[in-house]
Amino acid sequence: MRVAVVTVGDELLSGDTVNTNAAWLCERLTDRGVDVERVTTVPDDVADIARVVNEYRAEHDAVVVTGGLGPTHDDVTMAGVAAAVGRELSAHEEAREWLTSEGGYSAADLAERTTHLPARARMLPNAEGVAPGAVVEGIYVLPGVPAEMKAMFETVDEEFTGETAFSTVVDVDEPESELVGRFGELRERFDVTVGSYPGETVRVKLTATDEAVLDEARRWLESRVTLVDGGAE
Amino acid sequence: MRVAVVTVGDELLSGDTVNTNAAWLCERLTDRGVDVERVTTVPDDVADIARVVNEYRAEHDAVVVTGGLGPTHDDVTMAGVAAAVGRELSAHEEAREWLTSEGGYSAADLAERTTHLPARARMLPNAEGVAPGAVVEGIYVLPGVPAEMKAMFETVDEEFTGETAFSTVVDVDEPESELVGRFGELRERFDVTVGSYPGETVRVKLTATDEAVLDEARRWLESRVTLVDGGAE
Repeated sequence: MRVAVVTVGDELLSGDTVNTNAAWLCERLTDRGVDVERVTTVPDDVADIARVVNEYRAEHDAVVVTGGLGPTHDDVTMAGVAAAVGRELSAHEEAREWLTSEGGYSAADLAERTTHLPARARMLPNAEGVAPGAVVEGIYVLPGVPAEMKAMFETVDEEFTGETAFSTVVDVDEPESELVGRFGELRERFDVTVGSYPGETVRVKLTATDEAVLDEARRWLESRVTLVDGGAE
Repeated sequence: MRVAVVTVGDELLSGDTVNTNAAWLCERLTDRGVDVERVTTVPDDVADIARVVNEYRAEHDAVVVTGGLGPTHDDVTMAGVAAAVGRELSAHEEAREWLTSEGGYSAADLAERTTHLPARARMLPNAEGVAPGAVVEGIYVLPGVPAEMKAMFETVDEEFTGETAFSTVVDVDEPESELVGRFGELRERFDVTVGSYPGETVRVKLTATDEAVLDEARRWLESRVTLVDGGAE
């Protein structure tokens, strides 16, 4: 299953907010065996949201959109998603019922726009807040407030499935440039993906769909490099 | 000036790493008056990088790319950027000279791929690491290691310019849904952008290009809402 994540919000594009929602969603989706192929941040703008969501839904099995739900003028994500799928944005009966019963709002208090979802979308209740989410044509629309986003994702996470991959990390105390040859041999010998992340030392992440292959590859590498803490074993 | 940011790396798409580079770049670019319109994370894959960079350079004044520089097999950003602009990826004489003089490498020790840049690119020395960056056709290619990325950005930041905007924050202790009417009036009365970010309370960010207008708008709002800490003044 191939997924794209779209995070909506001017506060992300101005650097006011670090995009921890994206990291959290990526980790959860990856744990479920899903390939996250894009994470894109777009402004609070209907046309930008519509364009990116439309492009991504054509190329991915699902699109997860987060941020920009609610009653104020800068909450335009539902309008953008509705435009992307060519549906009207309209008052959603189920959303209204949920908000005026479990949500605890009187019909008079309710900010009307909060109930507006793309026509015939599946409504996702917001256990931690007010604005409901929605699912429409493989597009999952979640709030941007982290606690609300996480709680809502938990209600749909089983709809995201893929081949589970195993991974392990080897911390190496050698310059990255000197590891090039061994990485090449490792990748020839074993069906593993090798990621190399230099910092003070080099963090090498091995990923494979077969756990036994992963273990074998790890042992092969560990016996040929200077490991952090204690050197080569 | 309209800019897109492209962050490269499987570690971002798996949620192993929170994208603090993007937040840092967005903040710096916004401070310089630049509009950041997209931030997109792509995998360590030549075709994905080439496609996104090519699309963004067509629509923005500049593209800032970070991550995926270096000698290992998963460092493919320079190849992706070269493909995006239709240039060869080749040994860059200036990069080699820099690495073997100030970089402190002997020609024999040098990982050859580290010197490969898109043909005729401007080389950016890496004051904090090994892999050089590059500028080609409005595309700025920076390392992914945060200290290296930041130091290299400082050498080109004056090439990013725009109309300076002023902003201020008002923390409001009312439900967001009840502020809708006042936000509407605020936006009608003043030439300001209003961002509303609900949490425990509501963080309202006002942005304007005229500082006097911003002050006036802030006073107008503060006198009409319940402020956090001390209530309405």
